[in-house]
Amino acid sequence: MGLLKDNGVFYNPVNEIDFGPNSNKVYLHADVKAPRMTGIFAKIFAWFLELKIFGDVLLYFLKKNNRIQKLVSFAVLEESPLYVPLHPYEDAKQDEESKCLDSGLSPAEIVKEAKDCLQSSETILNDITSEKGFFRWTIMDYSRAYTSGKITPLKVAERLISAIMQSSTLGLNMSFFINYESHDILKQAKESTLRYEKGEPISVLDGVPIAVKDEIDCVPYATTGGTTWLHKERPCTEDAFCVNRLRSCGAILVGKTNMHELGAGTSGINPHYGTSRNPYDPKRIPGGSSSGSAAVVCAGLCPVALGVDGGGSVRMPAALCGIVGLKPSFGRISHSGVIPLNWTVGMVGILAGTVEDSLIVYAAMSGGAETSELNMQPKLYIPMLKPSKQTSSIRLAKYNEWFNDCSDDIRVCCLRALDSLYKCYGWQTVEVTIPDIEVMRLAHYVTIGAECSASLGHLLEKHNKSESGSDVRVGVSVYGAFSSRDYLNAQRIRNRLMKIHEKIFTMADVIVTPTVGVTAYEIKDDVHETGELDYVNGAALVRYAIAGNFLGLPAVTVPVGYDKLGLPIGIQFIGKPWSEAKLIQIAHAMEALCKTEYRKPQVYYDLLTVS
Amino acid sequence: MGLLKDNGVFYNPVNEIDFGPNSNKVYLHADVKAPRMTGIFAKIFAWFLELKIFGDVLLYFLKKNNRIQKLVSFAVLEESPLYVPLHPYEDAKQDEESKCLDSGLSPAEIVKEAKDCLQSSETILNDITSEKGFFRWTIMDYSRAYTSGKITPLKVAERLISAIMQSSTLGLNMSFFINYESHDILKQAKESTLRYEKGEPISVLDGVPIAVKDEIDCVPYATTGGTTWLHKERPCTEDAFCVNRLRSCGAILVGKTNMHELGAGTSGINPHYGTSRNPYDPKRIPGGSSSGSAAVVCAGLCPVALGVDGGGSVRMPAALCGIVGLKPSFGRISHSGVIPLNWTVGMVGILAGTVEDSLIVYAAMSGGAETSELNMQPKLYIPMLKPSKQTSSIRLAKYNEWFNDCSDDIRVCCLRALDSLYKCYGWQTVEVTIPDIEVMRLAHYVTIGAECSASLGHLLEKHNKSESGSDVRVGVSVYGAFSSRDYLNAQRIRNRLMKIHEKIFTMADVIVTPTVGVTAYEIKDDVHETGELDYVNGAALVRYAIAGNFLGLPAVTVPVGYDKLGLPIGIQFIGKPWSEAKLIQIAHAMEALCKTEYRKPQVYYDLLTVS
Repeated sequence: MGLLKDNGVFYNPVNEIDFGPNSNKVYLHADVKAPRMTGIFAKIFAWFLELKIFGDVLLYFLKKNNRIQKLVSFAVLEESPLYVPLHPYEDAKQDEESKCLDSGLSPAEIVKEAKDCLQSSETILNDITSEKGFFRWTIMDYSRAYTSGKITPLKVAERLISAIMQSSTLGLNMSFFINYESHDILKQAKESTLRYEKGEPISVLDGVPIAVKDEIDCVPYATTGGTTWLHKERPCTEDAFCVNRLRSCGAILVGKTNMHELGAGTSGINPHYGTSRNPYDPKRIPGGSSSGSAAVVCAGLCPVALGVDGGGSVRMPAALCGIVGLKPSFGRISHSGVIPLNWTVGMVGILAGTVEDSLIVYAAMSGGAETSELNMQPKLYIPMLKPSKQTSSIRLAKYNEWFNDCSDDIRVCCLRALDSLYKCYGWQTVEVTIPDIEVMRLAHYVTIGAECSASLGHLLEKHNKSESGSDVRVGVSVYGAFSSRDYLNAQRIRNRLMKIHEKIFTMADVIVTPTVGVTAYEIKDDVHETGELDYVNGAALVRYAIAGNFLGLPAVTVPVGYDKLGLPIGIQFIGKPWSEAKLIQIAHAMEALCKTEYRKPQVYYDLLTVS
Repeated sequence: MGLLKDNGVFYNPVNEIDFGPNSNKVYLHADVKAPRMTGIFAKIFAWFLELKIFGDVLLYFLKKNNRIQKLVSFAVLEESPLYVPLHPYEDAKQDEESKCLDSGLSPAEIVKEAKDCLQSSETILNDITSEKGFFRWTIMDYSRAYTSGKITPLKVAERLISAIMQSSTLGLNMSFFINYESHDILKQAKESTLRYEKGEPISVLDGVPIAVKDEIDCVPYATTGGTTWLHKERPCTEDAFCVNRLRSCGAILVGKTNMHELGAGTSGINPHYGTSRNPYDPKRIPGGSSSGSAAVVCAGLCPVALGVDGGGSVRMPAALCGIVGLKPSFGRISHSGVIPLNWTVGMVGILAGTVEDSLIVYAAMSGGAETSELNMQPKLYIPMLKPSKQTSSIRLAKYNEWFNDCSDDIRVCCLRALDSLYKCYGWQTVEVTIPDIEVMRLAHYVTIGAECSASLGHLLEKHNKSESGSDVRVGVSVYGAFSSRDYLNAQRIRNRLMKIHEKIFTMADVIVTPTVGVTAYEIKDDVHETGELDYVNGAALVRYAIAGNFLGLPAVTVPVGYDKLGLPIGIQFIGKPWSEAKLIQIAHAMEALCKTEYRKPQVYYDLLTVS
């Protein structure tokens, strides 16, 4: 970024930029002036914006005073637009640390291959109660328990249903699910139990409960997207591609998890279905938009749940709930059967208790994407998860000013994690400067907003606006006001940031950041009816998420500790395009150093322990 | 297109459409209500649109009453956006009819290969005066004349300069060029002459005069884009990729041809540099926006000129001036050094006297494009231009209602051409229905307008609006008013039309249409100062051009006859992605059936005849 010309900022060519730690590039802090608003004030604000002429004038002034105008809409830069963050697929070097799978394998065969790559762990059923720290049950724990006959999928399903019901009672009000059907869960569990009785489980996922964000089609449920009306316009007639993959591996699909309405927020506060609560402290948000999926994994109801990550929506709640969140490269998993809230930033993601579990489910779902632009399907690599000392040397790019733009507890905790990576594995941190991070956040906002407006505009216009929360109403009004020039310049900034990140990846293997800038904050009493407008916390939550979406890069968050209030903290690794295998390896090594310190959430259900 | 839902049209899935001749799909005629405007009225209209608040309100009502709103902005369709019309490259089957070139060849080597594929013609120097019809000198004629020593490049250059000067005199006022420098032309010609004297010409293009549209960088000229100011903001520091290729083959670059201001019109009327005139009738338009390039080839000043085709801008003037116009597949030729008036619809194109000449120059310039999305460069195939009877059988898709939506003379002439293709080669016409042709025109208009607004907006805002013609001022105002939703829905329509055309190409090898709906119309006296707003004629001119741009398909126009006034008529073939070799073969076969009837333009210069 350079001289101001007229209204817009002038960006100098990427090749002239110094990406070293002493670069003259300034880190721009998010500059959110909007006050927090809820209740009647938020409602009135939304109503004003929706007025025909006054609303347009109001939006005109809101835009004018906004950095988007200066940094995006009127930006002067040489890059042409890059519309879709699909990277040409470079065949990663075949090394001893990962295995390339044949493209013809069935999901169950892929799961078998993934299972064979897991660290040959000595996990013994029920060491959850040991003194070594808190463990969540893993997919392998379920699989071994079923195979050994210690418990059946049916029994687990019954416990699960009872736990969901208990969690929904007035005292707790966890609001994990928008929809679940006991009958359907039990039916799947019985079929799985029969398979185990015959000694013919389909895969290690057979009988494992998995929850699905209510943005992804999953029979027999309607797909609400967190709204009261979308499912009436867009009926769910078959499983989404990713759900179908898991079902074909024998997984039990246990229902549709709560989410921020239309995925248009980071808190997970939902005025229609109640707000999912953070199992580490039910007074606090779980984060969003995949709020329910993070919460159910955290609370032990499922080892894995599916989310969708269009602007950190998998990684943010995973971090706030102290679990693993994996967002694959754009185009890695088919989005067929996912509500098209956007076309170029979203990706199905995995929320899991452990890195190994995220790997299994990631592998099972990979493929099928509409990547004709690539001329071929990217190959699927599975990392060999060895005892971590043996993992090869990794260089971690760290942009200090960005890294430090978070709460003190998060900073200290993440720095300690980096320190332990260095001490245990010798992994070096490389200090870099990544310019235009805040510009990227703004350009991403324009992009996701404009795409949402184009994909759902005709439906939004049909519906009574009062059917939506105030935050969504305000969002939709703002989204609809973006011009084609706003959108196209945002795509030029996408191209620029892509080039910037290519430079960074010549200096390091991954970029490391905290996952979010703040830990889980309190759910105020005034949010339940209308939702909440809180752009300050929102900006702090998405601060580190955007490269994963806007540039299509794979990213993973791993829990690394807790703040003074005992709320979870996550660290994020952002990888090169298609580098999921390496990223999972790194996350696995990180997890190994932290897991003995994991703590049990306040709300936790143990479905597997045989009493 | 189906039921009207609310404000927008509902488009049914492509797979449910009948593409046969009896389809229930209705052909939508262009419905342009705007009156022709020039002079003070056009100026006032532009001024109104540019007013801060009143202009926005006016645009709001203009948009509201426009089909764009109903058919594009509020369209309801299932397709996701397709932003860039880059087709995955399928390796065409190696057949006897074309030769695949090594990717490592130099431009001169490619030209050699292309030359070897030409029909071994018996063209004898000076048969231009024979009774067999009117011939323009070809590249091979120049090459043979130079090699035989009958004439030198220097002598040709001197004649050329004298012809340009003569054409610019008051009586003629042809306004072919925006800029040409005698000194620079003579310098190149001397160097070429020396090479021939040494017996070391670089290629058959050595010494051949080629003109360049003033939208393409060519040293030592400023690149005005037909404006009075753009070159001051965007200095030309080196040759564009395509120009560099031709220069390296020895071609003499003779100056920058006139064009419609910013390429934003179809007539070629330019209030700043005078309006190029049609050599067949200097009272009439040459068509645009590559007006000067078409006119100089037509008038015999160059065998070939370069244009840029973002919405028919090469093919339309080629047809109106009775020459060949070739627009390659999107991404075939690098756009480096071309004014970025848009990013996804434009392509460098070739205006030439003969199909063979278009092949030579096309081959010389191919490559270098920024097609990383493709993961590789498309291979270059050169067709073997055999005596035409031997060309294999071709199926020509024809959509009757569309084909017939032109003047009577054009329809009759093009039908006769089809008839002769059948009689001489047995090529069958397949009757098809291509839905949503008019929708495609509107979506393309939104796209090119939005992209122009984003690429040049910051410059347009800096400049006094009165420096532009009224038509451009109105255009820029409209372009700036497109919303992100307009743009994104236009891209969804692009995806839809791409699928529709894929279906058509399962039924036929190429699509055949007239090139334009009207022949060259008169330049009125009132247009010279302010330009002209004539959307009715504009719509008739671009009627058949859009698939070549919006879908990135290669297309070629060949002159096939004249209307009652003696004005040229062209026929257009639109090919599958990357099928230039086949397209050139087809055009060559068509040309062979028509060339004996070609007529000499009123304004014509013979640079080669040795008297």
